[in-house]
Amino acid sequence: MVKRNPNFKSLSENYLFPEVARRVKAFKHQNPHVELISLSIGDTSQPLSATISKMLKKKSEELGTHAGYHGYGPEQGALSLRKKIAHVFYSDTISPEEIFISDGAKCDIGRLQLLFGAQASIAVQDPTYPVYVDSKLIVGCHPIAYLPCTPQNNFFPDPKLLPAVDLLYLCSPNNPTGSTATKEQLKSIVSWAKKNGALIVYDAAYAAFIQDPDLPKSIYEIAGAKEVAIEVSSFSKFAGFTGIRLGWTVIPKGLRFEQYESVHQDYTRLITTFFNGASILSQAGAEAALSENGLEEIQRTINFYMENASLIRHALQIKGYKIYGGMNAPYLWVDFGEKKSWELFQHLMEETHLITTPGSGFGLCGEGFLRFSAFGTRQNIQKAIKHIETKWPRSLELMSPLPI
Amino acid sequence: MVKRNPNFKSLSENYLFPEVARRVKAFKHQNPHVELISLSIGDTSQPLSATISKMLKKKSEELGTHAGYHGYGPEQGALSLRKKIAHVFYSDTISPEEIFISDGAKCDIGRLQLLFGAQASIAVQDPTYPVYVDSKLIVGCHPIAYLPCTPQNNFFPDPKLLPAVDLLYLCSPNNPTGSTATKEQLKSIVSWAKKNGALIVYDAAYAAFIQDPDLPKSIYEIAGAKEVAIEVSSFSKFAGFTGIRLGWTVIPKGLRFEQYESVHQDYTRLITTFFNGASILSQAGAEAALSENGLEEIQRTINFYMENASLIRHALQIKGYKIYGGMNAPYLWVDFGEKKSWELFQHLMEETHLITTPGSGFGLCGEGFLRFSAFGTRQNIQKAIKHIETKWPRSLELMSPLPI
Repeated sequence: MVKRNPNFKSLSENYLFPEVARRVKAFKHQNPHVELISLSIGDTSQPLSATISKMLKKKSEELGTHAGYHGYGPEQGALSLRKKIAHVFYSDTISPEEIFISDGAKCDIGRLQLLFGAQASIAVQDPTYPVYVDSKLIVGCHPIAYLPCTPQNNFFPDPKLLPAVDLLYLCSPNNPTGSTATKEQLKSIVSWAKKNGALIVYDAAYAAFIQDPDLPKSIYEIAGAKEVAIEVSSFSKFAGFTGIRLGWTVIPKGLRFEQYESVHQDYTRLITTFFNGASILSQAGAEAALSENGLEEIQRTINFYMENASLIRHALQIKGYKIYGGMNAPYLWVDFGEKKSWELFQHLMEETHLITTPGSGFGLCGEGFLRFSAFGTRQNIQKAIKHIETKWPRSLELMSPLPI
Repeated sequence: MVKRNPNFKSLSENYLFPEVARRVKAFKHQNPHVELISLSIGDTSQPLSATISKMLKKKSEELGTHAGYHGYGPEQGALSLRKKIAHVFYSDTISPEEIFISDGAKCDIGRLQLLFGAQASIAVQDPTYPVYVDSKLIVGCHPIAYLPCTPQNNFFPDPKLLPAVDLLYLCSPNNPTGSTATKEQLKSIVSWAKKNGALIVYDAAYAAFIQDPDLPKSIYEIAGAKEVAIEVSSFSKFAGFTGIRLGWTVIPKGLRFEQYESVHQDYTRLITTFFNGASILSQAGAEAALSENGLEEIQRTINFYMENASLIRHALQIKGYKIYGGMNAPYLWVDFGEKKSWELFQHLMEETHLITTPGSGFGLCGEGFLRFSAFGTRQNIQKAIKHIETKWPRSLELMSPLPI
């Protein structure tokens, strides 16, 4: 009989969100009349903007006509969309040929693992988005290095302490910590990558939420990054494309392997084999999103989510816990000190009727933290705040709250 | 510096369609006023049906409203769509839980290679859809066994001659040969798989084109197939979803690895890591396609393409060459005997102004054949026929054509 792929044995159970769901279900079963408010997953709540929705309708109509129908698009995505992305997000410092349109950042992260293969060693931030690790384990792996990211190091790894690895995965604004890398931090890491012959996979899926004009929205704002970095991004969060799926990955043409083989060429070969292009509807919607009207509408949605973040932040600050993130990212990362994440989760669910995400689910260094997501509807957020104000667990009241 | 993934070295160049494109470009450059007619790639030409287009518009509108918006769907796809597929294509002999909705069969073939991993040995038909081989080479591989499929064995491998492999890839109706496996052939192969502890990956992307009611449209029509077979299929060809992307894969819950580990469970884990669900728009469109009206409209499109196939078949038959396929498949596979595929391609392009696909591009056993696709518009097909009738290359005229 066929042997199981041994790589699957090394995966720990997909624990975090299924376990959250299991606990929520158990609580609801015992408390059928209690309304729970979720600040847990990072799913968007605001509708597609008018310009996007209109374009999707137009394209849906066209695809139903002989004149407007077309089938396969290029695997790499429509050139017109790649040009728009190059212009809007990279001020044309990246060429359209370096941009690969996809069905989302998560899928691209998987494809990048396939690109580099089992023999590539990787390092990830701890806490981290679990997909970096799981996709590596499935492709096959050298040991994975976990880089502690805590308040002590401003949630960013110190290049001097980095192990020798082929690939470094960085996420900024970070999921889950909500921290955002500064130019200085990115400079130090680009310089480390150059010195050590490593490559950086930079996940910028939340870059549109950055408010501070001094913070970089792309790693390519750092000189020399094009020689050592791949950037992954997505329309999911800023344009509400979580359901209709669209992302992109930048593979600079200058990126080389050890024997000067082109990374871009291998990735092209990979996507023409493992992928057949993102939906041409989603691509049309994305192009509309990057029109003048589309960008204005998106900005309003971003502002809306960031107001959510600010409301949650304010309500939690009064409780006195140290809060990170939520200023340039749609996630807040709250430090509950010595307490355990799953116990915190349970207390907040049972007493405050809030669903959060336990920090330890993202890695050992997330222990003691909870992640709060700002992607809810305003009604949802306002209810959450009321619960925080009126039903905060006694066990979590601080004797001497920090000054706000 | 980072080493190139050694698996990429074993890939031969992505030769077939790029080389077709290169030769077409060169010809057009030298003959700017000649109109070339393409019967080459398998891209659909008929618009989305009215029911599908209408549903896409409706859903596009809804996603732009607070009440109708939603984000992430389940990675496995909407349960309502999985139920429809189970009912329409498998008469409910497959459960919705066994169906995984995806962004297309090609992508699923890649994910299946990841599921079984580098250590799994595979066998493919020769000629074959190149993606089976290329995706295996990228994931890493034991030698791949190529099973000759020629007129001598009715384009189907003899189970008695099969090597010991973990996975057998079968495509029926076949791309490129247009041949369709009979129940007896599939019975023999299911029985072989059971005896030898192998699994079958059955690509049924063209099943909707089968006209003969005695030919199986799914491998699960064969008793016991659920214990040894995975089936991959797609809305691309029969519903015109090549651009908007939607496919599915059936992983029966009973499928087991050597130590009785569940294949279904590992695949679930794989798609929750490497995939984030197909576009909810495409899923809504697919559900509309499987409504009563939708199915009627699809049947008309299938009939249209099969009429195309019949027209091409008739025109070529007069020339006397032996033609396979085109009866239960949208591809015709024409046997030009001792001649070389690329020479044939060149003659037909230069003298008849027809673009075909050289059979040798699909494998050694495709040498001497050309593939003709029936997916064009009627205008396109009629022009092609006129060219066949009036501009057939002298070098390809048979002295004594076969009787029709």
